[in-house]
Amino acid sequence: MVAPGSGGDPPIDRDAAREGLALADIAVRLGGEALGDVSVRIVGVASLGNATADRIAYLADPRYRGELATTRAGALVLGPADRDASPLPRIVAAKPQLYFVSLTRLLHPERRPTPGVHPAAYVAPGALVPASVSVGPHAFVGAGAVLGEACVLGPGAHVGERCSIGAATVLHANATVYHDCHIGARVILHSGAVVGADGFGLAHEGDRWTKVPQIGRVLIGDDVEVGANTTIDRGALDDTVIEEGVKLDNQIQIGHNCRIGAHTAIAGCVGIAGSARIGRHCMIGGGSGIHGHIEICDGCIISAWTLITKSITRPGTYTSATPFMEHRAWIRNAARMRSLDELAGRVRALERARANEDKEGESP
Amino acid sequence: MVAPGSGGDPPIDRDAAREGLALADIAVRLGGEALGDVSVRIVGVASLGNATADRIAYLADPRYRGELATTRAGALVLGPADRDASPLPRIVAAKPQLYFVSLTRLLHPERRPTPGVHPAAYVAPGALVPASVSVGPHAFVGAGAVLGEACVLGPGAHVGERCSIGAATVLHANATVYHDCHIGARVILHSGAVVGADGFGLAHEGDRWTKVPQIGRVLIGDDVEVGANTTIDRGALDDTVIEEGVKLDNQIQIGHNCRIGAHTAIAGCVGIAGSARIGRHCMIGGGSGIHGHIEICDGCIISAWTLITKSITRPGTYTSATPFMEHRAWIRNAARMRSLDELAGRVRALERARANEDKEGESP
Amino acid sequence: MVAPGSGGDPPIDRDAAREGLALADIAVRLGGEALGDVSVRIVGVASLGNATADRIAYLADPRYRGELATTRAGALVLGPADRDASPLPRIVAAKPQLYFVSLTRLLHPERRPTPGVHPAAYVAPGALVPASVSVGPHAFVGAGAVLGEACVLGPGAHVGERCSIGAATVLHANATVYHDCHIGARVILHSGAVVGADGFGLAHEGDRWTKVPQIGRVLIGDDVEVGANTTIDRGALDDTVIEEGVKLDNQIQIGHNCRIGAHTAIAGCVGIAGSARIGRHCMIGGGSGIHGHIEICDGCIISAWTLITKSITRPGTYTSATPFMEHRAWIRNAARMRSLDELAGRVRALERARANEDKEGESP
Repeated sequence: MVAPGSGGDPPIDRDAAREGLALADIAVRLGGEALGDVSVRIVGVASLGNATADRIAYLADPRYRGELATTRAGALVLGPADRDASPLPRIVAAKPQLYFVSLTRLLHPERRPTPGVHPAAYVAPGALVPASVSVGPHAFVGAGAVLGEACVLGPGAHVGERCSIGAATVLHANATVYHDCHIGARVILHSGAVVGADGFGLAHEGDRWTKVPQIGRVLIGDDVEVGANTTIDRGALDDTVIEEGVKLDNQIQIGHNCRIGAHTAIAGCVGIAGSARIGRHCMIGGGSGIHGHIEICDGCIISAWTLITKSITRPGTYTSATPFMEHRAWIRNAARMRSLDELAGRVRALERARANEDKEGESP
Repeated sequence: MVAPGSGGDPPIDRDAAREGLALADIAVRLGGEALGDVSVRIVGVASLGNATADRIAYLADPRYRGELATTRAGALVLGPADRDASPLPRIVAAKPQLYFVSLTRLLHPERRPTPGVHPAAYVAPGALVPASVSVGPHAFVGAGAVLGEACVLGPGAHVGERCSIGAATVLHANATVYHDCHIGARVILHSGAVVGADGFGLAHEGDRWTKVPQIGRVLIGDDVEVGANTTIDRGALDDTVIEEGVKLDNQIQIGHNCRIGAHTAIAGCVGIAGSARIGRHCMIGGGSGIHGHIEICDGCIISAWTLITKSITRPGTYTSATPFMEHRAWIRNAARMRSLDELAGRVRALERARANEDKEGESP
Repeated sequence: MVAPGSGGDPPIDRDAAREGLALADIAVRLGGEALGDVSVRIVGVASLGNATADRIAYLADPRYRGELATTRAGALVLGPADRDASPLPRIVAAKPQLYFVSLTRLLHPERRPTPGVHPAAYVAPGALVPASVSVGPHAFVGAGAVLGEACVLGPGAHVGERCSIGAATVLHANATVYHDCHIGARVILHSGAVVGADGFGLAHEGDRWTKVPQIGRVLIGDDVEVGANTTIDRGALDDTVIEEGVKLDNQIQIGHNCRIGAHTAIAGCVGIAGSARIGRHCMIGGGSGIHGHIEICDGCIISAWTLITKSITRPGTYTSATPFMEHRAWIRNAARMRSLDELAGRVRALERARANEDKEGESP
């Protein structure tokens, strides 16, 4: 028997996952057109390169079309254009990637722990924890916290005082939410994520720094995912806001009072300074930085390793990374970067000299 | 009743926070000149934009002076120059920002948990834990550790063997201090911070790496703040030292044997390689990098996203970030960066040709 | 008495560490030639600068040779070339750094906690935990997990369901390994490290993102070290692989389906995007970024703060960092970077004008 909240499997019907499904049955459940030997039994998904006879794979990228000839997969998911690209049993679907996502969920259903509060968890007397919630060992739920139905708090996860956590939200092991934050429904916080730590608010008091109390909150909308070891600071006075559907990769830092617009996706290692406002449906590449107190409009794409130092008001793709090169070439080029303005001045001088010459040539 | 160390409120007098204060009373307590209807009751602070009639706001930046006309705040804190910039009830203070900080502390006092060791915490028999200390559930205090008066160890916080932790220092939930480190008084370690992990010490042994034991410590001075998920490695032989009053934002990495001078502030995502020495009263912008074994003098300002590759001996502001641009423009410019030295050579050739020409022109 | 898994010392013979050794005895145990007063008793290692009369130091870098004259160390480890560089008692060893590493291990043996499962740990009924393993308080071992002999799980460490952990591997406090990952022998995971969180897999579903299930694993080879707060994502379909002997510093992000070749060392704050393949015996400097889906060949050196945007097929040193400068100079130079292509066009125009002139000069 698995202890409540201990990370075991729930006693639901997982037959599809355990015994697999015939290709024909998959098409019945998820749609699409099954072609070839539709009786082939499929127990799981796999990549084209590593699939075996009981697995189904899909063509993620036309560049890999060559792998269709060599894959040992038992079946394939293909788009209409690739309908006859392989003789293998196959399902033709209008959007093969989304079809494959659904198929993965069907054959590899997420394991949710048994509901219940593990006896080694700490739940403050005042907290509201529905019976459908799973609280793992050594998790902490502070006084006044309110958990939504079917939440999962992994082992060592921390929900501070007076937080609210939406339905079906998951905090993985050792994720931390400070007091008074509001997390939406179906949010995923990965391990090591920290939501609601104090923003970096300092004031000069003579020649020392004094801490500016950070009394704002973090508000996270529905369907947000927060990667491992990503940090989102609470607001100073007003709140830090992560709108619905935002997807944050690992090791991202979001400063106090930022607002990240709905459905924006941010790759790993990005740093966003305080009070920056990122629009909706933006994509920000890994390792990028955003200055504080600026605004990036909806629909912007920021390339990886790019620093945005002022507001962007027109959708587009923006970049600042420098190209890499062999170190010896870099040494010579980098020295020139240090004196680029001087080089430009020399070009200007040459142009002036030529202009004077031409003028002299014209007026003999 | 709140369990000891469980994150509840202490039974101290919090009337000011609960019922608010008349503006006149605020001025009596904190100084400043109260003007207008000084009987207005204030229960909390807020931003100009979001304040309501029972809140007090302040003008953080002259750029926002326009908001004074539209704010719904019940009262304001203003500097002497803005004494009559609003007809609202107000307090005129010489340093409005610091005044507002004091006011925030008065109206929103930090909640400290009840002293005591929670029964679900682990405290090694040899550890010294004064009665004034709060140790939360699932926290760990190793053998030989010595905690100062009124320390707070949040849930899941870890204090390794033989550490000393100064008075009133706070480790938030899931912060980790390895063995044998010394933390000063009034230090704040946010969640996910890791102090004292092994430095990155490796030696070649044939074609493999062998680990160089890291037997130094981390010494952190008084009044230091360490942001969420920031890491400070222990020294290899000597110690890593963070001097008093240093303020570290989130996701910073400080390598072994670094020394960070007193009252230096470092923004998020900065990486400082081993044995670097940063002076006192420096400010280092977010996302910057500092090479190892270099020295940065007191009073330096490093811009965001800047890489410092050699020692700096003169105070000043230093920058290396590349400007961002639209991606299409960047593609053309980046190609030129790769051949900048060659471009400079072509300019030199043009200059030489002109110089020869001029010489020829002079000597017919 | 130290509780099982509580972080105390094992009852092994630690005499060498406690009472020290005569220099002659050190040479007997570890080899090398002892010179001078070989009876001097040495209790520990230290740096040249901070050593005392009962400590032994070594010359880490020829640049510090001047310190040999002033050190207060009781003895030295020197290379053959420095055999007579000091009159102090000394051991001459062919490879002084490796000798010093061995000496450090001898005099400062790593403290391993007492074997046993602490009663405040959670171990799922199905997990395999040999008697030689130490599981600290508040650690978690999921159902179906298999721990190797003499593993150490620090307080709050998390081993997910069905993981396997190799012999003598150490998870420091609050390190987290998600379900179904495989960790080799003698691996070290520092605090806050997260292995096996979901990769950043998203698919467009209309104007929203849908999560692509991440069903691959993380496989970590023997003798790998993973720094504090470093994150290694699980694969989407196939696995993320860290080969044997890889050394990862702190705050590194490794995306899903990456493969890091054996004995590669990566410094702090590096971000590696999904499906990148790094060769064997590479060295990657701190703060660097590697694009996804590219390949870096064996034996490459990537400088600190460098962005690699395409595959590298030839071993060498590669760099992209921009040089830092005083901010005022930077402002002028940065403006030129934005119009570098235009500057190159102007140089080209000057060259063309001169070429035309020369042609005209030739054909009168």
